[in-house]
Amino acid sequence: MSSNNGIILKKHIDPVEGYPKVGEHFGLEERPFNLEAAKVDEEHPLLLRNIYTSIDPYIRNRMRNPKHKSYLPPLDLGQVIPNLTIAEVVKSAVPEYKTGSHVIFMSGWEEYTFVPKDAMKVVQVISNPYNLPLMTFVGALGMPSQTAYVGLKHVGKPKAGETIYISAASGAVGQVAGQLAKSMGLYVVGSAGSDEKIAYLKEIGYDAVFNYKNESVHDALPRLCPKGIDIYFDNVGGETLDAVLLNVNFYARIIFCGAISQYNNPNPYRLKNYTEIVLKSITIEGFIVMNLIPLYQEEYFREMPKLIAEGKLKYKYDVYKGLGSIPEGLLGVLQGKNFGKALAKIADE
Amino acid sequence: MSSNNGIILKKHIDPVEGYPKVGEHFGLEERPFNLEAAKVDEEHPLLLRNIYTSIDPYIRNRMRNPKHKSYLPPLDLGQVIPNLTIAEVVKSAVPEYKTGSHVIFMSGWEEYTFVPKDAMKVVQVISNPYNLPLMTFVGALGMPSQTAYVGLKHVGKPKAGETIYISAASGAVGQVAGQLAKSMGLYVVGSAGSDEKIAYLKEIGYDAVFNYKNESVHDALPRLCPKGIDIYFDNVGGETLDAVLLNVNFYARIIFCGAISQYNNPNPYRLKNYTEIVLKSITIEGFIVMNLIPLYQEEYFREMPKLIAEGKLKYKYDVYKGLGSIPEGLLGVLQGKNFGKALAKIADE
Ligand SMILES: NC(=O)c1ccc[n+]([C@@H]2O[C@H](COP(=O)([O-])OP(=O)(O)OC[C@H]3O[C@@H](n4cnc5c(N)ncnc54)[C@H](OP(=O)(O)O)[C@@H]3O)[C@@H](O)[C@H]2O)c1
Ligand SMILES: NC(=O)c1ccc[n+]([C@@H]2O[C@H](COP(=O)([O-])OP(=O)(O)OC[C@H]3O[C@@H](n4cnc5c(N)ncnc54)[C@H](OP(=O)(O)O)[C@@H]3O)[C@@H](O)[C@H]2O)c1
Repeated sequence: MSSNNGIILKKHIDPVEGYPKVGEHFGLEERPFNLEAAKVDEEHPLLLRNIYTSIDPYIRNRMRNPKHKSYLPPLDLGQVIPNLTIAEVVKSAVPEYKTGSHVIFMSGWEEYTFVPKDAMKVVQVISNPYNLPLMTFVGALGMPSQTAYVGLKHVGKPKAGETIYISAASGAVGQVAGQLAKSMGLYVVGSAGSDEKIAYLKEIGYDAVFNYKNESVHDALPRLCPKGIDIYFDNVGGETLDAVLLNVNFYARIIFCGAISQYNNPNPYRLKNYTEIVLKSITIEGFIVMNLIPLYQEEYFREMPKLIAEGKLKYKYDVYKGLGSIPEGLLGVLQGKNFGKALAKIADE
Repeated sequence: MSSNNGIILKKHIDPVEGYPKVGEHFGLEERPFNLEAAKVDEEHPLLLRNIYTSIDPYIRNRMRNPKHKSYLPPLDLGQVIPNLTIAEVVKSAVPEYKTGSHVIFMSGWEEYTFVPKDAMKVVQVISNPYNLPLMTFVGALGMPSQTAYVGLKHVGKPKAGETIYISAASGAVGQVAGQLAKSMGLYVVGSAGSDEKIAYLKEIGYDAVFNYKNESVHDALPRLCPKGIDIYFDNVGGETLDAVLLNVNFYARIIFCGAISQYNNPNPYRLKNYTEIVLKSITIEGFIVMNLIPLYQEEYFREMPKLIAEGKLKYKYDVYKGLGSIPEGLLGVLQGKNFGKALAKIADE
């Protein structure tokens, strides 16, 4: 008898309640599973064996109590937590999906997933002309990289010679945003929370970097951005955003991608310097990657795999091993302990 | 002997110092002046007799201590406070400017003004094909109306059927923004601080209005905007902006025009709900009218005088009488006591 263990939502968690607790809010559930006897049919045309799965901070949002509105649907109690996953087709009732082929799907944090009929249209067979490692498709090419790409192009409208500052610069989004900005001729400044991360940022081409735990952002920004900031790629919100508002140039664009410093903060930081938005004709724009990616899909999949294959886009992974390590992985991501894109290897390729 | 009295800046005032004090920071200075003997020459080609002058809240900003940076240059101590003015040419050394003709110029809060050579290019002879009353040119056609126009068109990108909310709706900017939005087919909601202002807003065509001193903006917005807010024309900043962030729709645009509730506020309001900007893909854009007006000048002066002449744009004035009343007028504007566009009549036409 094989198993189909999963990471299950056990209790909703309020936005201001702090970090979710393993065991209380979510955790591993052991579920026996008879793989050999499992059958696909018209209702469930595919059975997937999940291999790599993404661990993203937005999951915290989906774990919330449904009475709180958000752009993301809340998860149901008892539900396996879904996330973007690379899987192998192990049983198939449709000829377009051959057993043994690899697909990308929101199957999530369990060993095996039956794909319901309605979801078939979003099961994407991996096309891999550059023969990139499998995990690239939830890693360097995954959702956070898409976020960096559309945020920078659509909202940032970068021009060569401008200065961009990127917070959480070594994270999944930040590391790609920085390298893309560099390739567009910008002066790229970044911050991160450890010296190891800072060293990595230098390695991937950031022009100037600081560890915000050693130097206040209020001191570092004027020091490192002598020409002021033209674009801010904001991953963290909070006091960093406030400091940026005092250090941006006229007509600055703020790509408001996320506010990770606030998601689990029971005392959310209140913004002081927002009147600078008028005084300096600043634009702040929030966006959700899934709404913008259709506009950029084609150019993204034309440019990015090539950049990666040519070694022009370095990418750091933080790989958790085994399904059971995912809760720790998610907490790590929420607490900023991860270094690079967090994902879990659920099974061997 | 005639006089050339003026309103003079006497002491700079810090942004957090509250309202400027008459006598201490600024006030009337009596200055004898021999009008008959006054001569124009190459250095000062025009002598103007100031008739109507605008009283705008941004003057508070220009009175600040120069050590505080801003988009507007600070004024010098002892300087007459300049503001947009309608004047009559009383002496002229250049044939293009005939004595007796009317011009628009930043001459400001004094009886007579010599125009220095360098400033001649910005002295604008009034062209008045619809024979509008003179004060229209610092009133219904003046800078605040231009602000409403460019803010709405350039930043707001309004579409018929959308809901717009406008704060300080009866002010110089707000009353025009509301009527323009209405003419573009929007559902127009406004707030103001007295029942008299509220009655005026209904009169000029606002669809729904509330007195924010009687009903909290947190209650009024969901009540009056059942379809949510698509565009917010923000004149006040502060808590109103925070409430709006909770009541806007996906892809809302916030025209950040001003934050009058904060300019003289020793305890500036700190914004709580800014993470909504990400969650709802909101855009907030600040702008300065003088930087945008060149893009819109031609269409503005084609459309607006016609609207006014046809009676399609109502406009409320709050006219202070005599130079000596200007300090009171400025304080009124800063404290929100004015009702309609504040200006002073310095002399008879
Ligand atoms: N708008 C969208 O469509 C979209 C899509 C994807 C992601 N996002 C957002 O983009 C941001 C970055 O995502 P990501 O995938 O790059 O995240 P990630 O790889 O998990 O990196 C997160 C990093 O944020 C930093 N951080 C700073 N303050 C933190 C705090 N208080 N708690 C936890 N971490 C903190 C940590 O690095 P340091 O040690 O350097 O602080 C951490 O490593 C997040 O805000 C996320 O919600 C938005
Ligand atoms: N971005 C630009 O280029 C530009 C250009 C011009 C003006 N502006 C800004 O646009 C806004 C409106 O200007 P305006 O010329 O229409 O002003 P105005 O005619 O002087 O009207 C100001 C109104 O603001 C309201 N208000 C609300 N809270 C206030 C407070 N704490 N203190 C004082 N007044 C308060 C008052 O009406 P209630 O009784 O209804 O509260 C007052 O009548 C200002 O913020 C101004 O700085 C920006």
